[in-house]
Amino acid sequence: MAFHYPNGKPFHDQPRRDLPLNYGNRGMTLEEDLNATNLFYREHGIAVIHKKPTPVQIVRVDYPKRSAAKITEAYFKKPSTTDYNGVYKGKYIDFEAKETQNPTALPLKNFHPHQIEHMKAVKAHGGIVFIIVKFTTDNDIFLLDAEVLFEYWKESLNGGRKSIPKKTFYNEGALIKIGYAPRIPYLEVVEAHYLI
Amino acid sequence: MAFHYPNGKPFHDQPRRDLPLNYGNRGMTLEEDLNATNLFYREHGIAVIHKKPTPVQIVRVDYPKRSAAKITEAYFKKPSTTDYNGVYKGKYIDFEAKETQNPTALPLKNFHPHQIEHMKAVKAHGGIVFIIVKFTTDNDIFLLDAEVLFEYWKESLNGGRKSIPKKTFYNEGALIKIGYAPRIPYLEVVEAHYLI
Repeated sequence: MAFHYPNGKPFHDQPRRDLPLNYGNRGMTLEEDLNATNLFYREHGIAVIHKKPTPVQIVRVDYPKRSAAKITEAYFKKPSTTDYNGVYKGKYIDFEAKETQNPTALPLKNFHPHQIEHMKAVKAHGGIVFIIVKFTTDNDIFLLDAEVLFEYWKESLNGGRKSIPKKTFYNEGALIKIGYAPRIPYLEVVEAHYLI
Repeated sequence: MAFHYPNGKPFHDQPRRDLPLNYGNRGMTLEEDLNATNLFYREHGIAVIHKKPTPVQIVRVDYPKRSAAKITEAYFKKPSTTDYNGVYKGKYIDFEAKETQNPTALPLKNFHPHQIEHMKAVKAHGGIVFIIVKFTTDNDIFLLDAEVLFEYWKESLNGGRKSIPKKTFYNEGALIKIGYAPRIPYLEVVEAHYLI
């Protein structure tokens, strides 16, 4: 089947649907696969989406002679935003990616309250915002709109369950078919769910 | 004069145009002023724009008992994107901010080739992309569309001048009036130049 990107560009690097189902299980993390996917999207002129650098609180920097500045004391900071953002067809795209070893649900403790607030604000300003979640026991990768996350988050604050069942990902999200290039073609889902 | 934000919201925290002209010169860097501005925009529901974390290559991390992980060796990486991005009225916003002590021009060595490529890609995908430049000798702050930067960049690669004259900022950019809240109301310029 001829496959074209939604922007009309032919898709030269055909996703290899004939790969074994456990293709994703070669020690690649979701982050590595998403970085490769975003690189593919950038290099093929499809979208400009980057992972943000890990936020670090720098405390001490040495300046050795004739060498580059060396950070000798720093600490990880809690992110106040999501990890990935960028632009696709003029639209602002924003998402968070999570892996879980839990086979049946995504625990909500994977998110910080600040990230939820950030995602809500992005939604309010007309951005496209979602989560990409990998269940590592069977390598299923889903895209789920942030509104669904907000509902479960609210429920959990009111004493409800503290996780999103995998069933919800099947029913309200979209299973992303793992490919070869790009590895995680999530923009096909974005195209179908947000832009058409 | 009653002042309303382009989204119709009244502007409760009136920028104080009556402040002395050297208001900006109180030891605040452009980055600090932009961070305060973006915080104002977020807290007032006007836009969601953040500075990206400084990219750092982490080499060694210690895990002291009962304490937070401590990064003991890391190096600064060259940024491959711009420093600021986010969403305003559903539009993807992307910009780089630079200060210069040069009173008459902005040297192009302030930019990395990767950043220029990034800005070109953002433009190609329908994002709004510009630079905010502060001439510290007189605290003039300008917004200049990235296209103008691209022209000078190209000229410099062909043996032309290696800087953008301040005159060009006056003629083709927009002088941003420094305020109190927000300090650098650059979205007024974005509204006028890109969205109307």
